[in-house]
Amino acid sequence: MTAARARRPAPQGFAKGHGAENDFVVLPDPDNRLDLSNEDVVRLCERHTGLGADGILRAVRCTATPEATAMAADAQWFMDYRNADGSRGATCGNGIRLLARYLVDAGQHEPGAFAIATRAGLRHVHVPTRSHDGSGPVTVMMGRPRLPGSDSIEVAVGHRRWPALHVDMGNPHAVAFVEDLAHAGALLIAPIVTPLHAYPHGVTTEFATLRAPRHLALRVHERGVGETRACGTGACAAVAALRTREMHSTAARYTVDSPGGRLRISAHADGTMDLTGPAVVIAHGTITLPCTQA
Amino acid sequence: MTAARARRPAPQGFAKGHGAENDFVVLPDPDNRLDLSNEDVVRLCERHTGLGADGILRAVRCTATPEATAMAADAQWFMDYRNADGSRGATCGNGIRLLARYLVDAGQHEPGAFAIATRAGLRHVHVPTRSHDGSGPVTVMMGRPRLPGSDSIEVAVGHRRWPALHVDMGNPHAVAFVEDLAHAGALLIAPIVTPLHAYPHGVTTEFATLRAPRHLALRVHERGVGETRACGTGACAAVAALRTREMHSTAARYTVDSPGGRLRISAHADGTMDLTGPAVVIAHGTITLPCTQA
Repeated sequence: MTAARARRPAPQGFAKGHGAENDFVVLPDPDNRLDLSNEDVVRLCERHTGLGADGILRAVRCTATPEATAMAADAQWFMDYRNADGSRGATCGNGIRLLARYLVDAGQHEPGAFAIATRAGLRHVHVPTRSHDGSGPVTVMMGRPRLPGSDSIEVAVGHRRWPALHVDMGNPHAVAFVEDLAHAGALLIAPIVTPLHAYPHGVTTEFATLRAPRHLALRVHERGVGETRACGTGACAAVAALRTREMHSTAARYTVDSPGGRLRISAHADGTMDLTGPAVVIAHGTITLPCTQA
Repeated sequence: MTAARARRPAPQGFAKGHGAENDFVVLPDPDNRLDLSNEDVVRLCERHTGLGADGILRAVRCTATPEATAMAADAQWFMDYRNADGSRGATCGNGIRLLARYLVDAGQHEPGAFAIATRAGLRHVHVPTRSHDGSGPVTVMMGRPRLPGSDSIEVAVGHRRWPALHVDMGNPHAVAFVEDLAHAGALLIAPIVTPLHAYPHGVTTEFATLRAPRHLALRVHERGVGETRACGTGACAAVAALRTREMHSTAARYTVDSPGGRLRISAHADGTMDLTGPAVVIAHGTITLPCTQA
C-alpha cells in the first residue's frame, strides 16, 4: 500500500481541534483505507511544515479493522491513536473526548452516551446535545487505575529528584508530587525515570502539586510527544496517586488544573474514573497524503 | 463590524503552507469583508488552540481596499500581512512567495511573473508553471536594501555582545555576524538591540555566519513572532550586510541556509535583490471566525 500511495498522493479530509489545549488532527477513515506510516504522522504533527498536533486520531469503523471487530457490537468507531512521533498509543483521554465531539459535530454519531473502541478496550463517552458553537464539556469514562507499584520509582530533572508512584491507566505513568511545578524546569527533554525496567515501553511523567483538598495543579511530559498543555490519562493518574497517598477510598470529585485548562475527575466507589473537560473542533479541511515536501 | 461578527460567527476558507518552513495561514478575502482583529490573528496563529502559524496572509483584491487602490493598475491582489502577535507588517519575503504559490495553485492568478501589492509597495514575484505536486521554487523581487547606518548598533544575548548593521528591507533589521550560531542560545526571548532609538518600531535580528564565500548560515528572531525557521527579508538583510562588509558591488548570487531550508538570493547591479526558495501549500479548509473558545 505504501508504494501505491507514494505514487499517487490522495486528498484526505481532516479536522483540527483540542481538549484543554491538548491538540489533535482527526483523520476520518471509515473504511480503513489509509495506510498511515509513522513518517506520515510525524509530518502531519510537525508544527511548521504540517498541520501541527500533539497526536493523530484516525477514526475507523469497528467493522473495518481487525483491531476492533471484537468490539463492533458495542461501538461504531475505533480510535487509532498515534503519538506525534508516529508510535501507536493505547488510548488518550483528551483525544477520545475530542474524537467524540468530532463524531457528534460531523453527524457521525448521535449525542449522549456511547462507546468508542481503543487499543485499551472500550471507552464510554458522553457528549451533551450539541451546543450552538460546538463547545462545552465532554466526558470519558477512563476505567480503573492500576498501581503495579512494587518498585521504588524516582523521577529526576537536572539535579532534582522526587519519589514517584507508578500508575497504569492503560498506558504507563510516573507521578511525582512536587513543591513547585517550576522545579520541573523547561521540560524540553524527558525527565529521567528509574528504574528503567519498570517501564519497558517508556513512560509519561506527571509533576503534581496540591492546591487545595482534592484540587491538583499538574504538568505532564508525555511519552512520544513532550510536554503537553494537558493530558487526560495523566490527570487521572495524578488523582489516583493522590487517592493512594491520602488514602481516599470513597467516591469523590477532583479538579486538575493543567496549563491548557481545567479538567474534572470523578472517582467512583468501584475505583473507576470519569474525566470531563472542554473539547472543541476548530477547523475542517483537506490535506494531501503523503504530505508534500517543499 | 467587530460587534456584528461577535454575534454571528462565520465560516472562513483558509490554506496552510510554508516557505522554507516559515509558515503561514492564507485567508482569501477578495472583497475585504473580514474584519480581522489582532485577537483573531493571535488565536489563529496559536499552535495548540488555533491553526498555528508564524503569520497570517490575508489576500484582498486591490480594488477592494483603500490600502491598495493606488496599486490596482499593476496588481490584482493585496497582501495584508500580519505577524503572529496581530501587528501589521509591511511585507514578508517568504509570506509573499507562499501567497503567490497559493494564488496560482488556487487558479486565482496565472503562473509566471506578476506583482502583489503590499504595505511596502508593489512586489514582483515569479511562479513557474504549476508542477504536478504544487512544490518547486518561487521567486520574489525584494527591492533595494537601505543601510541607514549612522548609529553603532549592538546586539546582545545573555552575556554575549556583537556589533551589528542596520538594514532596512521595508522592515527594520539588525544583522550580527557571529562565530557560531549556537552562541545566540535558545532565543526564547528577543535579543537586546541598542540603541533603542534606532528602531522605534521594533527590530528583526539576524545572526549570520559565513560558511563559504557568498554562502551564509542564518538564524533569525523576528519582530512580533520569535525565532522562525526562515525569514526572507532577514536573508536579504544578511546578504546586504555581507556585501557591505566585504565591499561586494557587482551582481552576485548568494546562498543562505536557514534552519528550515536553503534560500537563494541574487543581488543585481542596480542594488535590488531577488529571493528564491521553496513554497508549498499543504492543506485547505474552513475555520469559524472568531475562533471558538473551548
